[in-house]
Amino acid sequence: MVNASIITIGDELLIGQVIDTNSAWMAQELNKIGVWVKRRVAVGDTREDIWNALEEESRYSQIILLTGGLGPTADDITKPLLCNYFNAKPVVNEEVLKQVTHLFENVFRRPLTETNRKQAEVPDTCTVLFNKLGTAPGMWFEKNGKVFISLPGVPLEMKGIMSDIVLSRLHDHFKMAVITHRTLLTAGVGESVLAEHIKDWEASLPAHIRLAYLPNYGMVRLRLTAIGIDKTVSENEIQNQFDQVKQLTAEWLVTDEDLTMPQVISKLLKEKNKIVGTAESCTGGYIAHLLTREAGASDKFNGSIVCYSNAVKKSLLKVSPETIDTEGAVSEDTVLQMVKGALDVLKTDYAIATSGIMGPDGGTPKKPVGTVWIAVGSKNSVTAHKFQFRFDRMRNIELTANNALNMLRKFILSEHNP
Amino acid sequence: MVNASIITIGDELLIGQVIDTNSAWMAQELNKIGVWVKRRVAVGDTREDIWNALEEESRYSQIILLTGGLGPTADDITKPLLCNYFNAKPVVNEEVLKQVTHLFENVFRRPLTETNRKQAEVPDTCTVLFNKLGTAPGMWFEKNGKVFISLPGVPLEMKGIMSDIVLSRLHDHFKMAVITHRTLLTAGVGESVLAEHIKDWEASLPAHIRLAYLPNYGMVRLRLTAIGIDKTVSENEIQNQFDQVKQLTAEWLVTDEDLTMPQVISKLLKEKNKIVGTAESCTGGYIAHLLTREAGASDKFNGSIVCYSNAVKKSLLKVSPETIDTEGAVSEDTVLQMVKGALDVLKTDYAIATSGIMGPDGGTPKKPVGTVWIAVGSKNSVTAHKFQFRFDRMRNIELTANNALNMLRKFILSEHNP
Repeated sequence: MVNASIITIGDELLIGQVIDTNSAWMAQELNKIGVWVKRRVAVGDTREDIWNALEEESRYSQIILLTGGLGPTADDITKPLLCNYFNAKPVVNEEVLKQVTHLFENVFRRPLTETNRKQAEVPDTCTVLFNKLGTAPGMWFEKNGKVFISLPGVPLEMKGIMSDIVLSRLHDHFKMAVITHRTLLTAGVGESVLAEHIKDWEASLPAHIRLAYLPNYGMVRLRLTAIGIDKTVSENEIQNQFDQVKQLTAEWLVTDEDLTMPQVISKLLKEKNKIVGTAESCTGGYIAHLLTREAGASDKFNGSIVCYSNAVKKSLLKVSPETIDTEGAVSEDTVLQMVKGALDVLKTDYAIATSGIMGPDGGTPKKPVGTVWIAVGSKNSVTAHKFQFRFDRMRNIELTANNALNMLRKFILSEHNP
Repeated sequence: MVNASIITIGDELLIGQVIDTNSAWMAQELNKIGVWVKRRVAVGDTREDIWNALEEESRYSQIILLTGGLGPTADDITKPLLCNYFNAKPVVNEEVLKQVTHLFENVFRRPLTETNRKQAEVPDTCTVLFNKLGTAPGMWFEKNGKVFISLPGVPLEMKGIMSDIVLSRLHDHFKMAVITHRTLLTAGVGESVLAEHIKDWEASLPAHIRLAYLPNYGMVRLRLTAIGIDKTVSENEIQNQFDQVKQLTAEWLVTDEDLTMPQVISKLLKEKNKIVGTAESCTGGYIAHLLTREAGASDKFNGSIVCYSNAVKKSLLKVSPETIDTEGAVSEDTVLQMVKGALDVLKTDYAIATSGIMGPDGGTPKKPVGTVWIAVGSKNSVTAHKFQFRFDRMRNIELTANNALNMLRKFILSEHNP
């Protein structure tokens, strides 16, 4: 088992200004080649703290990955420190200098400053990991049998160097254990009910197969991880356990692949050759964003009417003014009419409609914050459901979007298997 | 100076399934009361790793905050470990049991399982930090002069306990240094040009005032942090430096408050008493989402037409079929017509329109991936601009949204100060 530690450098992480998304991606990719991330540490732009982190993490792990601290600005002190730590002198790397010059002349079209030129300097004991997408190169060091890899903090650049060079170099350098994952996604069931439901099966899992519960806004992902030596044995073992848990959770199963809910919807629409649109009040375009965030939805998603104001509900979606006056905008009748309006105006096979009170203000005794009506339907039928969430605004938006997409998924399946 | 370490517990962080947003929020809140987060560490659901993290972090910090590992499922081992670490026995806390029972009976409306009941057990040497919003209580321990605080991993519950109890208790327990922040937001300038532009001023900063560059999709936030003893002295010193950097960056300054770009837009619309709408092709509803994600926009945002298909551009926004045939959907004429269509159909004072090729597919030699047209305008005038981004899909969406909002901001200001 090869362990890795990820050290993230930057005061911006310690003052909470930036959310670290790099580590999650790195962990996923390292897992795929059989490296287990044992620890993730964030430290500030302080020499002593970075030095201590290098010392400590090299006691835990054979691989130490550093991100950040390589930018052109004055708060970056990582490179001089690496020179010290690895007994190196800074030297200009000609290939990197060419890249930095090229980027400034042809891409950024800005004059090359002295600070920028410094980015082409690297410690002379490292192997340079060329950065095709930016100015700061990655660096590979070896010391006392451990591998240290320093990468820029810009996500795209870090990902580029990891995918192009680091992962395959690590794979060659170490003899890895085989790590196999199987993932399924459930919706409409809470973590504890699910845990209670599968507890006998879970208790019977062998020690080298682990189960993780990953709850996420109305959905729970179950991930099985097997650690083994032989790929075929590991895959057979995990498949057998995976088949069991799939059967046990069939009632709530959304997918047995590692897909997100929007990806499941896209796949289903492609299979059935159908087009969807949305009419969004309380989700304010978020469902449309989920459906278009990843590539490939464009021919199965026509568009949306975000009807944040009641005037737009009436004028574009033809919701009757009487309904809004008597029932209110957050009502069964309103979302049913919104679905019909969206089908008509966006010319789609299916439509989703949402209307609710997301908070923190706007609640009433009869319709407290978290009251949401969702409808989904086609020309032939429409179905609506009331939800009562009890969370903060962004969480209510996420829950509404996921429940709406799950309602659409069930609607499409039931229409094709009535 | 009081230091804190944040330990986040959970395999889901180490396999990269979950992005840690808790730590950033905690760091922000701790900063406000004068606690500096020295280290953030993520470890797995393994007894030894959690134990080691407790030992190590108590060498770095006076305050050790733990989140996660308190859920009802079987992979959670934190509570028994805390009993060991603090020489305690698990005892049922009656107040917590009442809360757990209440939540299951009246809110979740599910039977209370044995696993759930266990959540009311706490180590008998801790002070219980009551969790109004969930089943897992927070816990406060003291050992060798250090404070250890264990909190649930669910963001809303963690935030509730921090805000209600932990922050004020910490403030009473320690004598804090005064930490003062000032933040400004720039747009339309890169980090290195900005750094070069203010380098003389930056070099003259005293040691107890630090500057951080926080780049984010076409914007750079500058944050000054002063560490001092006397609040008034600190605030005067930082204000003086802040005024200087504001003047130096005036050309790109979006706001000198700690606001996001959508918050700046909302504030501006309220000041001018104007309403906005969007016509989104390539951003697919993301700008609408940004404008509605936070409360308070509802009376200044009417809605959006997400026109992902060309059919919707023509039918709802009245973009001329000839324009789309001859110029293409990603063209100046198309976004200009989209603005006019949106103003008309959404009945707003201002509109934003976006059309572009977000990637990874869909590029052509004349319009490569990252080509984006953005237009903003009112009844009286419309302005369009072409951008050429060169990133991944989600980054292109973010860049398009931020640039569109910045164009709208400048348009509104220039219309009122021609």
